[in-house]
Amino acid sequence: MVDHLFLRACRREEVERTPVWMMRQAGRYLPAYRAVRARATFLELCRNPELACEVTLQPIDEFGFDAAILFSDILITLPGMGLEVAFPDSGPKILAPVRTKAQIDALVVPEPVPYVLEAVTKIKQALNNRVPLIGFAGAPLTMLTYAVEGGGSKDYAHTKKLLYGAPKEAHALLDKLARTCATYLEAQALAGADCLQLFDSWGGIVSPGDFREYPLRYAKQVIAHLKAGPARNVPIIYFVNGCAPYLDDYASSGADVLGVDWRVGIDEVRRRVGDGVALQGNLDNGALFASPAEIRTRVADILARAGTKGHIFNLGHGVLPDTDPEHVRAMVNAVKELSAR
Amino acid sequence: MVDHLFLRACRREEVERTPVWMMRQAGRYLPAYRAVRARATFLELCRNPELACEVTLQPIDEFGFDAAILFSDILITLPGMGLEVAFPDSGPKILAPVRTKAQIDALVVPEPVPYVLEAVTKIKQALNNRVPLIGFAGAPLTMLTYAVEGGGSKDYAHTKKLLYGAPKEAHALLDKLARTCATYLEAQALAGADCLQLFDSWGGIVSPGDFREYPLRYAKQVIAHLKAGPARNVPIIYFVNGCAPYLDDYASSGADVLGVDWRVGIDEVRRRVGDGVALQGNLDNGALFASPAEIRTRVADILARAGTKGHIFNLGHGVLPDTDPEHVRAMVNAVKELSAR
Repeated sequence: MVDHLFLRACRREEVERTPVWMMRQAGRYLPAYRAVRARATFLELCRNPELACEVTLQPIDEFGFDAAILFSDILITLPGMGLEVAFPDSGPKILAPVRTKAQIDALVVPEPVPYVLEAVTKIKQALNNRVPLIGFAGAPLTMLTYAVEGGGSKDYAHTKKLLYGAPKEAHALLDKLARTCATYLEAQALAGADCLQLFDSWGGIVSPGDFREYPLRYAKQVIAHLKAGPARNVPIIYFVNGCAPYLDDYASSGADVLGVDWRVGIDEVRRRVGDGVALQGNLDNGALFASPAEIRTRVADILARAGTKGHIFNLGHGVLPDTDPEHVRAMVNAVKELSAR
Repeated sequence: MVDHLFLRACRREEVERTPVWMMRQAGRYLPAYRAVRARATFLELCRNPELACEVTLQPIDEFGFDAAILFSDILITLPGMGLEVAFPDSGPKILAPVRTKAQIDALVVPEPVPYVLEAVTKIKQALNNRVPLIGFAGAPLTMLTYAVEGGGSKDYAHTKKLLYGAPKEAHALLDKLARTCATYLEAQALAGADCLQLFDSWGGIVSPGDFREYPLRYAKQVIAHLKAGPARNVPIIYFVNGCAPYLDDYASSGADVLGVDWRVGIDEVRRRVGDGVALQGNLDNGALFASPAEIRTRVADILARAGTKGHIFNLGHGVLPDTDPEHVRAMVNAVKELSAR
């Protein structure tokens, strides 16, 4: 087994340079991806292991990223729980959002999505150990927001009505989402995923006390399950978008790597979370609209703040669809050149 | 002149209890407000000083808040600059979003909106010194996001294209927005507003370095203008929604009071910004969906964290339309009872 740069950085081992990948690296900013999407809907792409494999490898071939990430969507687990999801280009929609105790009681903890596991197996074969493969899932609180709001939200009013107005029901729903997430991630690892990322995209919408009570508590449940089972040696990345208010608690998640969004200095995060975890981040995805020279300056700044140990370079959130692929190349090359020891 | 509790707290003087008001306190959660809105559109309400006065006073009469805030909208300055705005119930829309240098060059720095100044005068008469009146405006970066995106946004891609891809044009636009904001706020103070709040609702979408370069820099320009002119003694509140990543710089704004959103502990903010400013906040607006007993517990927690000096109780963001007015009453009464010295 190859001891990949990316996995060594996850374990905070010495590395010859900082590894780099990018959230949503298999996505609409890439002409090769858009060519595949012209022949298939987003959901067809997720459900077809050959197509999912093809688009997963595109950014590795194109830019030389140090890790691949499974092409899928965090909402792909919801239909198995009993929630129908549509994926129009305007953003995913849950057709009957969860608002009542009866709806929560009716949800099931499903078997891991079979076509995702097939995609993992196929991608591992196709990668042939060039780079490791990251599997992923949505963290429980983030999945709750989608299930309850029915899609994106400006103010998360329905989410907060459930969390604060009906906490018992909220906990019941979060427990089901956490069990779904844990078995799903474990199955991805057993199918070959080398690393697992837990996306808490909306974990950052609550107060620090509620962060401990809701997103962090159920992320911990997922991570503890994984660390007690057959996938215990697979590194886990926990990413909270908007993590700045929670830095005193963030490291207690049990993850090997903490994702850092772009709004906070990665040096401040390091000071606050200590040396026991690796950090991943944290260039503003919008900074890829800057000139290649300015991108290089910003990459250098983040590398200097993050230090040489236990850092995986990434954006602070998914790459934006309008991004120029040549600016992505400028970022990747800058990381590789400027971080070489 | 009455030396109001609220204004004494803004100046960090000793107070007999913590003052309380609520962002969007004149709004859709109130049956009396909805009754007025049934007879007039949102824009008619903003443009009619008598109606604006009526709804401004409703929450003072109903709950006994310690300050009134002018009923208006931050986007009300844009038409005078040359940008047409529509206010459908789904949220405001700028009809021709600003994307080019030519569009930026064409914008003018207008005279303060006359019907807003008339409303300020009328409200001051109607209040008859019961409580002070807060005037307000959108901070330059927040106004830029609306002007450029055309409305709300999920990822602020157009904003970031302008800030990072065309920084010279971005600075030119921010300067025009800052000058508009400064003269507008000064005129509100001269018309009688006792305090001025600068809303940087989207100041929290950038990295700490970009916070200094864009939102903070232009908020400082506005505040410096006010502090050098005839309204210099009117306290200024600067509110950045999502302030947690910027606490090392926040106090340098020059404002007398810093607004604190709900995602960060107000005790952590106090530690990081020092004792030179008052703080305003910071109950999660969604916490008003909790039971009155739970609301009381959360109010007590915030009062304990904020301390007795230089604290104005508020929500961390505007009250949500679905909020039960009786829960607002529970919050106000809890603040008044629990903070009494």
